[in-house]
Amino acid sequence: MENKTITAAFKSKKLTAIPRGYRTFITNAGIKDTSLDLGIVVSEVPANGAALFTQNQVKGNPVLVGIQHIKGGKVRAVVVNSKNSNVATGKQGYADAVRICKAVAEELKVPVAQIFPSSTGVIGRRLPAERIVSAVKNLPAKLVTTDFEGFAEAIMTTDTFSKFVSRRVGQATIVGVAKGSGMIEPNMATMLSYIFTDAEVSAPRLKALLTKTAASTYNSLSVDTDMSTSDTVLALANGLAGKVSIPQFEKAFHEVALELTRMLARDGEGATKLFTVTVKNCASESAAKAIGKSIINSPLVKTAIYKGDPNWGRIFMAIGKTPGVKIYPEKIRIRWGGKSYGNYQLAVLSAYLQKNEELHLEVSLGTGKKSWTVYGCDYTEDYVKINAYYTT
Amino acid sequence: MENKTITAAFKSKKLTAIPRGYRTFITNAGIKDTSLDLGIVVSEVPANGAALFTQNQVKGNPVLVGIQHIKGGKVRAVVVNSKNSNVATGKQGYADAVRICKAVAEELKVPVAQIFPSSTGVIGRRLPAERIVSAVKNLPAKLVTTDFEGFAEAIMTTDTFSKFVSRRVGQATIVGVAKGSGMIEPNMATMLSYIFTDAEVSAPRLKALLTKTAASTYNSLSVDTDMSTSDTVLALANGLAGKVSIPQFEKAFHEVALELTRMLARDGEGATKLFTVTVKNCASESAAKAIGKSIINSPLVKTAIYKGDPNWGRIFMAIGKTPGVKIYPEKIRIRWGGKSYGNYQLAVLSAYLQKNEELHLEVSLGTGKKSWTVYGCDYTEDYVKINAYYTT
Repeated sequence: MENKTITAAFKSKKLTAIPRGYRTFITNAGIKDTSLDLGIVVSEVPANGAALFTQNQVKGNPVLVGIQHIKGGKVRAVVVNSKNSNVATGKQGYADAVRICKAVAEELKVPVAQIFPSSTGVIGRRLPAERIVSAVKNLPAKLVTTDFEGFAEAIMTTDTFSKFVSRRVGQATIVGVAKGSGMIEPNMATMLSYIFTDAEVSAPRLKALLTKTAASTYNSLSVDTDMSTSDTVLALANGLAGKVSIPQFEKAFHEVALELTRMLARDGEGATKLFTVTVKNCASESAAKAIGKSIINSPLVKTAIYKGDPNWGRIFMAIGKTPGVKIYPEKIRIRWGGKSYGNYQLAVLSAYLQKNEELHLEVSLGTGKKSWTVYGCDYTEDYVKINAYYTT
Repeated sequence: MENKTITAAFKSKKLTAIPRGYRTFITNAGIKDTSLDLGIVVSEVPANGAALFTQNQVKGNPVLVGIQHIKGGKVRAVVVNSKNSNVATGKQGYADAVRICKAVAEELKVPVAQIFPSSTGVIGRRLPAERIVSAVKNLPAKLVTTDFEGFAEAIMTTDTFSKFVSRRVGQATIVGVAKGSGMIEPNMATMLSYIFTDAEVSAPRLKALLTKTAASTYNSLSVDTDMSTSDTVLALANGLAGKVSIPQFEKAFHEVALELTRMLARDGEGATKLFTVTVKNCASESAAKAIGKSIINSPLVKTAIYKGDPNWGRIFMAIGKTPGVKIYPEKIRIRWGGKSYGNYQLAVLSAYLQKNEELHLEVSLGTGKKSWTVYGCDYTEDYVKINAYYTT
């Protein structure tokens, strides 16, 4: 993709710490071609787990199975394949997802409900489950390393780089991994992301933290308004590093999720820029988020920032079309990269838009004190190319 | 725009009849360059008028003036300029719109409230109103012909062909004109369109008919989900042809609006195809429309149909993400061009998508008996090019 030159600052840095007690297995199971297509992370001990799922009413079979399995709050293994999402594949597809979980559970000698499945890739084709079942034969013997970076690579689809990040919290470590590039829209329908830690955190606390964190990170991300049928965020805490400071843990957990969110936005299909929009001085957080989303999802705004068209009228258009939020056009103030640009500085604004890989727009509504930030990207010819010319 | 080869079947046909009592003046007023940028239609007698306006909270100044002027229900002249929308131009912009109306009213010696203004083009730049005022000097002497086709051309922006259509109803004639290509999304935020007739129809009946008709035509059209700040549909009936059969008139009026809607969709920015989606066997019309819009606005569906990716899973994704509509995935049936394609006919489906300039998708939900049809287009690299590289 010609436009995609993502500088290192926006990509994953080599992991310098990993949480205790996790082993990984990554391989090519032959789902579609010969590239990595299967990633498994196993916790030595049952980990407390919490998950959030897509709100699309058409849910992938692994999502349907995952919703059931996570109810127990304990997870021993995460099994993720790329190249096929096992969505819209009917009862057969559901049976296939269960079949994979059973095979892994038998290998690990743990209850099947402790296996958490995900699949990502094309919709509507039967998943060759038997190939995955074959690939996990003698799984315990294959769990010799802990390679979260490899796991991140195995679950990629149209991503152009693998996404992982870590933070230390006292004696514990958090590692977050994500994949996603298109069919990304908030309302918990964003991508696949997994956060692993060895901190001791209960399942209910993990769920509460995940829900709160997702609101300002994963759910504030939009690449193309399309809401995937597969998307899932899972957090696992196996407790092997013991208790940690909860405020510090929450801060680090949020940082991990936010950094992954920014990577997902920057790596949006065909994107050349990370686009963040903060809506402030608003009557409510929900209104600020709605306006931010309206801006970040507007094709005319997304195309304007791509090549630096200083067409700020489109920002007003996008604010004004937001459903259900009362605005006062004359009170609205706009800043780009911390500066306000007047009608006679269009060339300067255009230069700002063209020169920066991260663009920050701030919109002040003048109707209150609440604010919200959303994350997105520009719209380019390559988005069309990626999605029009072949089946992804 | 390389992709744009619109065959004659989708374009305007030469007008064979025009309504009595309308005169036009079209010119270059020098708003931006030397192409046509001003179109005026004058009715010899006060015409009954009805209008619908954008629901964007940021409304152009001509829209704000038009909302006031149409309250009287009488219109003598429509004054439309392209190249500048006079939006987000503050009190000065409002004064400019009023100034133009006053100049035309003085020339025609009619009340200023009988002048209906529209502007379309770039947002946020002051409209050079004095150039329009100069252009309308001695207007009565300039009203020598009736050239609706020229009027349609004068109001174009990124349109690639001018849009007009006529129908006869008894002794009367209806001519509809429209412009619009991008920033088009339903909820009465679609484009500029004017329907002129010499039939005798009261203002209230005209308003009721326009509202009903717009729901299934202009408001069922979407090019890019963006909702313009300027968009307006106006219907004028000067009565010079006397009374007509109301059922026949309604039918012809609907046909005019529908044909313009199809032209607007086909001429969507960068589009190579007209895309119509009928959602049927649904619990309500509003649910059918919501699902239709979700499909027709999905970037992943719009890119898939562009180059014939038979990725029907994306249709399910778009159905499933529709907010507020309960669906049952297993009951959903999909037909393309009247045929259902199974998993093993992807090549045939791909050929259908690639070979046709009009694509018709039918979705049966199996939840009721209501249906709705929406109109859109595909998403191409040219949409990005048109909107990213220069200010439109």
